[in-house]
Amino acid sequence: MATELKGLTKRSVNYSAWYNELVVKAELAEQSDVRGCMVIRPYGYAIWEKIQSVLDQKFKETGVQNAYFPLLIPKSFLSREAEHVEGFAKECAVVTHYRLKTNEAHDGVVVDPEAKLDEELIIRPTSETIIWNTYKNWVKSYRDLPILCNQWCNVMRWEMRTRLFLRTSEFLWQEGHTAHATREEAEERAKMMLHVYADFAEKYMAMPVIRGSKSETERFAGALDTYTIEAMMQDGKALQSGTSHFLGQNFGRAFDVTFLNKEQKQEYAWATSWGVSTRLMGALIMTHSDDNGLVLPPRLAPTQVVIVPIWKTDEQLAEINNKVSAICGNLRQMGISVKYDNDDQKRPGFKFADYELKGIPVRLVIGVRDLENGTVEVMRRDTLEKETVNIEGIEQYVQNLLEDIQANIYKKALDYRDAHIYECDNYDEFKQRIKDGGFFLCHWDGTAETEAKIKEDTQATIRCVPYGYEQTPGTDMVSGKPAKYRVIVAKAY
Amino acid sequence: MATELKGLTKRSVNYSAWYNELVVKAELAEQSDVRGCMVIRPYGYAIWEKIQSVLDQKFKETGVQNAYFPLLIPKSFLSREAEHVEGFAKECAVVTHYRLKTNEAHDGVVVDPEAKLDEELIIRPTSETIIWNTYKNWVKSYRDLPILCNQWCNVMRWEMRTRLFLRTSEFLWQEGHTAHATREEAEERAKMMLHVYADFAEKYMAMPVIRGSKSETERFAGALDTYTIEAMMQDGKALQSGTSHFLGQNFGRAFDVTFLNKEQKQEYAWATSWGVSTRLMGALIMTHSDDNGLVLPPRLAPTQVVIVPIWKTDEQLAEINNKVSAICGNLRQMGISVKYDNDDQKRPGFKFADYELKGIPVRLVIGVRDLENGTVEVMRRDTLEKETVNIEGIEQYVQNLLEDIQANIYKKALDYRDAHIYECDNYDEFKQRIKDGGFFLCHWDGTAETEAKIKEDTQATIRCVPYGYEQTPGTDMVSGKPAKYRVIVAKAY
Repeated sequence: MATELKGLTKRSVNYSAWYNELVVKAELAEQSDVRGCMVIRPYGYAIWEKIQSVLDQKFKETGVQNAYFPLLIPKSFLSREAEHVEGFAKECAVVTHYRLKTNEAHDGVVVDPEAKLDEELIIRPTSETIIWNTYKNWVKSYRDLPILCNQWCNVMRWEMRTRLFLRTSEFLWQEGHTAHATREEAEERAKMMLHVYADFAEKYMAMPVIRGSKSETERFAGALDTYTIEAMMQDGKALQSGTSHFLGQNFGRAFDVTFLNKEQKQEYAWATSWGVSTRLMGALIMTHSDDNGLVLPPRLAPTQVVIVPIWKTDEQLAEINNKVSAICGNLRQMGISVKYDNDDQKRPGFKFADYELKGIPVRLVIGVRDLENGTVEVMRRDTLEKETVNIEGIEQYVQNLLEDIQANIYKKALDYRDAHIYECDNYDEFKQRIKDGGFFLCHWDGTAETEAKIKEDTQATIRCVPYGYEQTPGTDMVSGKPAKYRVIVAKAY
Repeated sequence: MATELKGLTKRSVNYSAWYNELVVKAELAEQSDVRGCMVIRPYGYAIWEKIQSVLDQKFKETGVQNAYFPLLIPKSFLSREAEHVEGFAKECAVVTHYRLKTNEAHDGVVVDPEAKLDEELIIRPTSETIIWNTYKNWVKSYRDLPILCNQWCNVMRWEMRTRLFLRTSEFLWQEGHTAHATREEAEERAKMMLHVYADFAEKYMAMPVIRGSKSETERFAGALDTYTIEAMMQDGKALQSGTSHFLGQNFGRAFDVTFLNKEQKQEYAWATSWGVSTRLMGALIMTHSDDNGLVLPPRLAPTQVVIVPIWKTDEQLAEINNKVSAICGNLRQMGISVKYDNDDQKRPGFKFADYELKGIPVRLVIGVRDLENGTVEVMRRDTLEKETVNIEGIEQYVQNLLEDIQANIYKKALDYRDAHIYECDNYDEFKQRIKDGGFFLCHWDGTAETEAKIKEDTQATIRCVPYGYEQTPGTDMVSGKPAKYRVIVAKAY
């Protein structure tokens, strides 16, 4: 194991290899024998559970309730909404049969041709269709609205090239689907959820994000508007971390979800949908981690503090155990998760490397001399700085340190990002500089042609029209035509 | 809605119809347009979340960690374990293609024949195969054991006749899968988890269960031993509520999971698996509910207390609001979930019926005269008894009442069950009496022939060899052969 740790490629050498190796070595996830489907290992899943738990609470505070809708969707449902089918039919897993039978050689199983489905079923790539088909029966009057449902589930989109967490055929996510009586209320909900995502990213993941609207090309298939949060990874590439869609009446119309409004007229319900996925795990890893391994924000770290004793004799260990036991008790009382590792089968050096790799925010080391001196060695994972401090009051010290780390890694990520956002008005310059990553604020004439050309020339895409950026009109750097505002252009995961 | 409530069939008239109607009318779940797949509605899902949250905590207290494994399983994996494939291949959803394309008429989509998978994939009916295929890479030495993983997920078994919660093609569950270095440790873990389930059923669901071992015929496909908890529904039928399997080395052998034991010899790992599912929702409903609707145990009720005001003037409502606001605050402080329903669009009578249907354990009604007298009307859902009590100290009164309801419905279910367990030594008598339901303790000669005959004659099955029942040898009531012990025979869901 200790040798494996040394094997981690440096970010400066190959950022992509560093990421792939880190996910596996830190035991977050691994490829399965099923093409494109990952296994999320316990340590990775524990982080995902923390993410789920915070988000779930935030959703519920806005009135959202959880529910569960079928995994399988009749093929014909997909075709009901014209744009939606274009976006999702091309990459889905299709169930055609419902039984296997023993083969003739009696040494395996084959698909039973007798058990062919009349209509094929699709494993959900997203659930607008099946959910709106259900809402049809729930809604009669404006009094039945809004419906504010969310589900935590697995979805599947057949991907040709996959990467752990970032792009997998099966992934876990939450998808919120709301139905409203008015356009205004639906738009407000879509924006509200975007801000829930953004707040979560910044306050818990310690990941600064840019909030904005997608261009028409980049919108969700079937949406009138897609709001997005975009984060910058350490290589200057963008990672779309959450989206919220204003779907207008498209799904209401496609699935005949009508209601009697206050004026006693039949109207189609207004829709939103919004989701974040296990992709957030990839964003978390790439925002903070370093060449020694993971760096986790204290608020999402499954274990926030690890304590390692250094001893020679059994008496010494007993004495340290005794001292540490009280500290652990106190920390847990304060809501801090702590692990005491006095395993005598592993050397301290191995433990140090392993906990660095796993990104435990704070490490305490207590040796015999510390006991004599009433001290403890504290290491913070974000800066790797060590300090010897008084053991008296260590609990409060640790609590403050965790808050400090949370704030520090956010600031570090923010500084990095802000140093890599550029206004750019010249396409040749853009084409040159985009190679090194970064977010480019460029005037855009609003046409899909310009967008396509940028993508073709540089692989970069329009990430969003950013909110909160003071816009002035100008000239599109590609077409030379007038442009009302600047957009963020970047390469993206 | 109020008229719909009246439509609930009485249990004595048709227990099955009562159940089906209750699940839908209480808005717990409904059939979807996908054959055999249900929609779990927010109120039903909120109860499931409570179940999940308690169980998840209990699992973690025993050292279990959550993880996530792929939804899809290569067809060939199923065949690796001979008994397993027999048990599961016959009822599974098969993915054969990974793409749809626009049809020739351009008005729908069809399966793209070009996108046929080389090997078909099965939607997991249970995950032993894919998980043990993964464990292969995690285990080298006895030091890597035990592995204690659980996953909360959806599974699919193609069912011809489905009933909400009790038998659906897709259902939600948790499946624990552990790997051990010794037979003893694995057997101990399988039993430990059975007891976790039984404790949960009794303490949280207020549902008494009988713990026991399954007969060979009724074992999980691939298990050496299956432990079960069996509950009695109000119609005297059994509902298998959770199972835990000792799998021996069957999956270790099938997926080549070997380790170097302490004696430095290669050995196959020992396995267990254990699960409970959304079937528990059906058990919960059928154990306690009555002709007025759901009766929920306070510990699993999403809302434990509802408060309904009765008023005429705005001033009166304001006064009641004011009084209730303090009570709600106090109750929440005590960890009690409470809803205050002062909606002026619905009449009190409607609210009363609705909250009875939904099984809210405690209802408080506050009218104007109550305010004057310093009283409040309390109704407990389990007995429907009403009482007028002092509003002073109502919070403590409610807390005690919730505990009393929890204990009372458990006792009621226990008394019912115990009054319907019979020792029976005569097969003719058995055949007659089994028609009315109940658990029959019968001597069994241990043969599959006897078991099959009972099932053929009466549809009843051997539920388990019960634990904690003082066994004496006797004569098998069917075959007349010697029998070492009695088993529980019953009709089952």
